[in-house]
Amino acid sequence: MLSEHNFLALQEIVGAANISMSKADRICYSYDATQQQYLPDAVVHPASTDEIRRIMLLANREMIPVFPRGAGSGFSGGSLPVKGGIVLVTERLDRILEIDEQNLVATVEPGVVTEAFQKAVEKLGLFYPPDPASLKFSTLGGNVAECAGGPRCVKYGVTKDFIIGLEVVTPTGDVITTGGPTMKGVVGYDLTKLMCGSEGTLGVITKIIIKLLPLPEAKKTMLVMFDSIDGAAQAVSAIIRGKIIPTTLEFMDGRTIDCVRQATNLDLPPSARAVLIIEVDGDQEFLDKQCEKIKHIIQPLGVVEIRTATTPEESEALWQVRRSVSASLRKVNPDKFNEDICVPRSKVPEMIRKVDSIAEKYGVPIVNFGHAGDGNIHVNIMINRKIPGDLDKAKLAIEDVFKGALELGGTMSGEHGVGIAKAPYIPLEITPAAANYMKAIKKSLDPNNILNPGKIFLD
Amino acid sequence: MLSEHNFLALQEIVGAANISMSKADRICYSYDATQQQYLPDAVVHPASTDEIRRIMLLANREMIPVFPRGAGSGFSGGSLPVKGGIVLVTERLDRILEIDEQNLVATVEPGVVTEAFQKAVEKLGLFYPPDPASLKFSTLGGNVAECAGGPRCVKYGVTKDFIIGLEVVTPTGDVITTGGPTMKGVVGYDLTKLMCGSEGTLGVITKIIIKLLPLPEAKKTMLVMFDSIDGAAQAVSAIIRGKIIPTTLEFMDGRTIDCVRQATNLDLPPSARAVLIIEVDGDQEFLDKQCEKIKHIIQPLGVVEIRTATTPEESEALWQVRRSVSASLRKVNPDKFNEDICVPRSKVPEMIRKVDSIAEKYGVPIVNFGHAGDGNIHVNIMINRKIPGDLDKAKLAIEDVFKGALELGGTMSGEHGVGIAKAPYIPLEITPAAANYMKAIKKSLDPNNILNPGKIFLD
Repeated sequence: MLSEHNFLALQEIVGAANISMSKADRICYSYDATQQQYLPDAVVHPASTDEIRRIMLLANREMIPVFPRGAGSGFSGGSLPVKGGIVLVTERLDRILEIDEQNLVATVEPGVVTEAFQKAVEKLGLFYPPDPASLKFSTLGGNVAECAGGPRCVKYGVTKDFIIGLEVVTPTGDVITTGGPTMKGVVGYDLTKLMCGSEGTLGVITKIIIKLLPLPEAKKTMLVMFDSIDGAAQAVSAIIRGKIIPTTLEFMDGRTIDCVRQATNLDLPPSARAVLIIEVDGDQEFLDKQCEKIKHIIQPLGVVEIRTATTPEESEALWQVRRSVSASLRKVNPDKFNEDICVPRSKVPEMIRKVDSIAEKYGVPIVNFGHAGDGNIHVNIMINRKIPGDLDKAKLAIEDVFKGALELGGTMSGEHGVGIAKAPYIPLEITPAAANYMKAIKKSLDPNNILNPGKIFLD
Repeated sequence: MLSEHNFLALQEIVGAANISMSKADRICYSYDATQQQYLPDAVVHPASTDEIRRIMLLANREMIPVFPRGAGSGFSGGSLPVKGGIVLVTERLDRILEIDEQNLVATVEPGVVTEAFQKAVEKLGLFYPPDPASLKFSTLGGNVAECAGGPRCVKYGVTKDFIIGLEVVTPTGDVITTGGPTMKGVVGYDLTKLMCGSEGTLGVITKIIIKLLPLPEAKKTMLVMFDSIDGAAQAVSAIIRGKIIPTTLEFMDGRTIDCVRQATNLDLPPSARAVLIIEVDGDQEFLDKQCEKIKHIIQPLGVVEIRTATTPEESEALWQVRRSVSASLRKVNPDKFNEDICVPRSKVPEMIRKVDSIAEKYGVPIVNFGHAGDGNIHVNIMINRKIPGDLDKAKLAIEDVFKGALELGGTMSGEHGVGIAKAPYIPLEITPAAANYMKAIKKSLDPNNILNPGKIFLD
């Protein structure tokens, strides 16, 4: 528990209104999207880099664990206060500090909500592509810490690819800047990219410098139904082999379609056993040409139906099928484990077959959807925790899914991170030598292990 | 000096034909493109990861400094054996191991020459954009170690943006893999990007996994002459503000044009005081439209002449103007310091004015050319080392140029790295706290400081 002395010191830093040890507040900040719960000793809401610096100085001196938190929308427990201590909430650092239209660069605080930022830059004809499913509530700080992805990453890359500089408070209470507003920079080690995806274990992000793109002139969306998952997977490979990289190549397997059909009134013909949502963006005329080329490429692969949107409203209607997936799954099954393995994209059909046989082996339904274009599959293991044995089966199935992905040259996580959810499986993917290399970095920067301890590595 | 015992141990690892302590061989590997010279004790040419692993184990145990080297074409002394020891040459690891057309991913050894790789993937309709000026002889391993850039980076990004995985021998002799062949991956810290640009100080790169793009259908090149550098600089900003990101936006200032005119028979009218080479790539029809838009945008900005290439041969002729710069400068002035500062692109005109006043202050000619599109200016301080005082003036001018770039939110180096050339100036750009953070990482991974010591940081 936090001593009274330390409570008062923290209160002195952030003000009485911005620290709480009440049970209600501690419960509010005790969980994330994994639904796991760990009670912190206190919740603090700093408003500036300097307050965070002073918090870290105190925490490092007094050996108080600090757990940085954006919106708590993570899927791996990255922000969970697994060792008590302080939850450091960044939501008051929510300003877009600058959008530099001349240089296509923005500077923001970590608490800015992803969608709010996207809308702000789009108003100026600019574009921030990363689009995690949580973008309506997730923060940019959280996106950077976990290196969030999203459907558009197949063409544009992940969060990291757009982060060119940071201001960071180190675990020992120094304020450093990494990178900067230039498009190139090779002076010293690239701490910016090291911070991206380090899950808040190496520093507290207090400012983010973001590279922007011009907003594409137009986009075009197609929803394509296939009679088999193999047809859809072959379509993905064939499109890329055809030298086209669409903005998105989202897929849903047959079981996902069944859930959506069961839970919504969306019109999906029974012969559709896989869906691809293909979006292209760019110059208007060029788009039409690209769509024609895509249709030509995929036509022989068991296409049941193609729906094409030409207006934003029609596009939204097509996306509705994909967006309804999570809610539909929840309606049909009470509990699910949502894993996000990633394999080389040509291995998607093989991975799906592996998943199907794992589902059969353990007798648990598993549905697959996600970002086929970059081989990032959301594997959803559907169980009911109230049924004895279901949880154990799910755990065995998850391990098999991870092993299957790794056998195909893939990774256990394309977007969600390790946090606590995948920490037990780290030895499957990372050799002891590489893990020691990573732990050495952590130890050199956070000698007292006070910043987000217990994440990524169990020891 | 290397003991006989250690020489024999190294010989046992690489074979007698692949180690040398002869004066001639040591001299051959004593310099790089900076023209500075440091004699190593021995030169070794390993042929495999395992040989490199055994070399590093030995070197770490016996405290022998190891200096990894690609083609020695670096501009910052990154590969110079500044503390004797071993030069570890990667040129025998020169195989392209795989070009995976399905997944747009290639795996290569570090000694593959950049251009050879580009040609190999282009034959398959694929594309590796980074194009450092040294690409005809520089190696991909060196490109990764220094995070090389080039003209096309304005649209496509730098070397780091294409590197998704590595095999690395650590300073203590472990073999680790980082990242992998998937487009996403967030398990553990991103050691891949940390290695990129770490100048061979954190590990010896033994395999490189590279993301490729489809080769653009066509490209179009324009050489535009302006009556002032301000006009050219405004054109760069105006094009980007017009939401067009060309493949290249290369510029040359008036003094550079004068040198080229003096040294070659290229036809450049006297009224041209700045040149931009603008290249766009993509769909053929779209290109014409983009070029028309660019012409419309730049026309009011003091355009003297526009030359447009429509065939590869014509394009090559236009590029000849840019490619002749280095040789022309050398013809006109015997010695030069080629710095490569980078500023936010809108600050290019202000930076050029600063450079002009620095040239005047010290009475040394300075010519500027480079990658205006990403604000990366090659500032060439022209001197004659034989003239007493010229070298001192150049050193003072360099420091002013660095300070000027930093005042504008820029960096001392966009492409070349720190090596030994910029190590004395590190405190201008990196705060002690950030430097300590970097040194802590180095120390944790290379406790005996045997891998490329003396680089980036002086202490």
